Amino acid sequence: MLNEHYVEMTKQESIIRKIFMYGRERAKVVGAENVFDFSLGNPSVPAPKEFDEAVINLVNTSDSVSLHGYSPSLGNDQARSAIAESLNRRFGKNYTSDNIFMAIGAAGALAHALRSVVVPGRGDEVITFAPFFPEYHYYVGGTGAKLVVVPADITSFQINFEAFESLLNENTRAVLINSPNNPSGIVYSTATIDRLAEILNRKQKEYGHSIYIISDEPYRELVFTGTDAPFIASHYDNTMVCYSFSKALSLPGERIGYIAINTEAEDFPIAVPVFGQISREIGHNCPASLIQQAVSTVLDLTSDLSVYEKNCNILYEALTSYGFEIVKPGGTFYMFPKCLEADAYAFCEKAKKYDLLLVPSDNFGTPGHFRIAYCVTTEKVERSLPLFKKLAQDYGVI
Amino acid sequence: MLNEHYVEMTKQESIIRKIFMYGRERAKVVGAENVFDFSLGNPSVPAPKEFDEAVINLVNTSDSVSLHGYSPSLGNDQARSAIAESLNRRFGKNYTSDNIFMAIGAAGALAHALRSVVVPGRGDEVITFAPFFPEYHYYVGGTGAKLVVVPADITSFQINFEAFESLLNENTRAVLINSPNNPSGIVYSTATIDRLAEILNRKQKEYGHSIYIISDEPYRELVFTGTDAPFIASHYDNTMVCYSFSKALSLPGERIGYIAINTEAEDFPIAVPVFGQISREIGHNCPASLIQQAVSTVLDLTSDLSVYEKNCNILYEALTSYGFEIVKPGGTFYMFPKCLEADAYAFCEKAKKYDLLLVPSDNFGTPGHFRIAYCVTTEKVERSLPLFKKLAQDYGVI
Repeated sequence: MLNEHYVEMTKQESIIRKIFMYGRERAKVVGAENVFDFSLGNPSVPAPKEFDEAVINLVNTSDSVSLHGYSPSLGNDQARSAIAESLNRRFGKNYTSDNIFMAIGAAGALAHALRSVVVPGRGDEVITFAPFFPEYHYYVGGTGAKLVVVPADITSFQINFEAFESLLNENTRAVLINSPNNPSGIVYSTATIDRLAEILNRKQKEYGHSIYIISDEPYRELVFTGTDAPFIASHYDNTMVCYSFSKALSLPGERIGYIAINTEAEDFPIAVPVFGQISREIGHNCPASLIQQAVSTVLDLTSDLSVYEKNCNILYEALTSYGFEIVKPGGTFYMFPKCLEADAYAFCEKAKKYDLLLVPSDNFGTPGHFRIAYCVTTEKVERSLPLFKKLAQDYGVI
Repeated sequence: MLNEHYVEMTKQESIIRKIFMYGRERAKVVGAENVFDFSLGNPSVPAPKEFDEAVINLVNTSDSVSLHGYSPSLGNDQARSAIAESLNRRFGKNYTSDNIFMAIGAAGALAHALRSVVVPGRGDEVITFAPFFPEYHYYVGGTGAKLVVVPADITSFQINFEAFESLLNENTRAVLINSPNNPSGIVYSTATIDRLAEILNRKQKEYGHSIYIISDEPYRELVFTGTDAPFIASHYDNTMVCYSFSKALSLPGERIGYIAINTEAEDFPIAVPVFGQISREIGHNCPASLIQQAVSTVLDLTSDLSVYEKNCNILYEALTSYGFEIVKPGGTFYMFPKCLEADAYAFCEKAKKYDLLLVPSDNFGTPGHFRIAYCVTTEKVERSLPLFKKLAQDYGVI
């Protein structure tokens, strides 16, 4: 008797979870150290010690009723101001607390940003670019809009602009981008963002309504040496930045993030109060007060993220030498090589023979590839290399 | 260009917030100690020290990646089990972790429970009983269902069953109750709950579909001496308990609660996985990991709640002696006396003359009353009594 839409969703098994559960079972047979589980995108380095110290300090020194009391519905004032100042300092923005809405991670932020621009029943469309995070189907579908996917440019994983322009239309209300990208690890270049902005500015005029860039940025701080990584909101006025501290501070379970909307956006300053109203309908009501206050003291820090770049370089050098085709990541802890056969599922099944647990690419909207989540120890990455080599030898590419 | 529904909502000023802001300004003139702000339902006593100790202990002794890492989407396993065991111990239930879904406070819990039974566009109705928490309009409206309000029985604030039966129909999918009640402080008796259950069992058969009781229970532990306070889920199989630790543990800002669904419910065990799917669409993704883990160590504790009962008794004795008509609360930190004139707004305006800040009852779906939130110090309650007396004298009832 429950809503059938959700009951049906429970029957769709997550491929990543299936691989992860297989790995747990397999570890009982061959030992955890011999299972090379590259399936899950979970930070593998600790949170900065300053975060934990801030938690303890707040608990030890604050008045309980105030520390654990309700936040204002838009978020803790001090946290919102501190985030605005941090973004101004690092990216030359002009934010105040009025630009910032505190959210339960990027998922919470996207739930608000999308609902602010979508009107259910109007035929609204939200465009995203393959390869993309599969949860976007649910994030967008839950608002009543249609998710429209632009096929990947697999030579660079930048934007396939010809396909994009052909899919843009009067129903397009937002463009949902994710750079640095899960699953490709690619960062959109300044040239890409400027071309995207130029097209959207032109189309906004043509259609007579705004088209927001909703920029999903949980990997913003995970950018490798030498990568061109523009701050997207500085290149397009109608931008809502949806940020999460999950990856940069290794706090995915603490569900803390924010939306930052540009002062130059058409709907500033009403947008942040609108986010607050959306919360009332979806039961969001702010991140935990203690976590908001603790995070606001460590905004310019990150975990030690160097292991991700090191792992990326080791894997990229070795796998390309074995004959894999890879667009080299500019950040994150993912890479997205081409499979050695057309069917990504068959390829990932074959990799299991060597206890390499890889995610086939079809759910990311891009067939024929696989995702490696290298948020593991460097020692594990190094021990996996001979197995990738054997896999390549099976396919005769080395 | 943003969704007009939410833009319109930003223009509807909250009466409680308006009173609260007035109080802040007034305090600058006459001093905070001379403003008797009974407007806000925020806990006024500290969280148990054991909660803060648990936070510090977790931070000091846990592996960072595990402590701050992703919870499973239905909640931390250990927290779910511990909550099930606590409910079994205290209320004789038969729960396991499979009955429990961790949620961001009662608002988050209700967002999931309501969406699990409502199908947008089907004409679904959710019934609630006046007086009721005004946010129910948004909680229910946001799911696509219609909120149907049963007028209050103002002699007892138990259920007006004649009106209820006349409003029940084939579109009724859930009955949303809140006992102990905000704003009346009344607790539904065993007789009330049993009669409600009898009617719903009969109507479920007649309509051929389930009608859930969605039981909003943030005040469950705030019950005064001698009050008959049945555990509602033990009286009706199709019950979803929506609980928050906000009031009992004085943690409203930490956004932590749960849904417990009966093992005997028609949709157990699929309901909890369904809640998990709903999260994916509304961007919920669990309470903060640290808070889930800390709360699970203090489940059988509460803050020192005795001040609320003491304040209630003092106010009730004094105000009734001044001529106010009050149904005596059985719990919470609210009472809901009858105004001394028909227009509650006018009455509350007059009370402002004595710096008594009271909330008029119209938004609670019951005209002619006012809410006192006595979650303040007893000293403040005592100093307010002569002012209530003067107010009664103005109306000539004493």
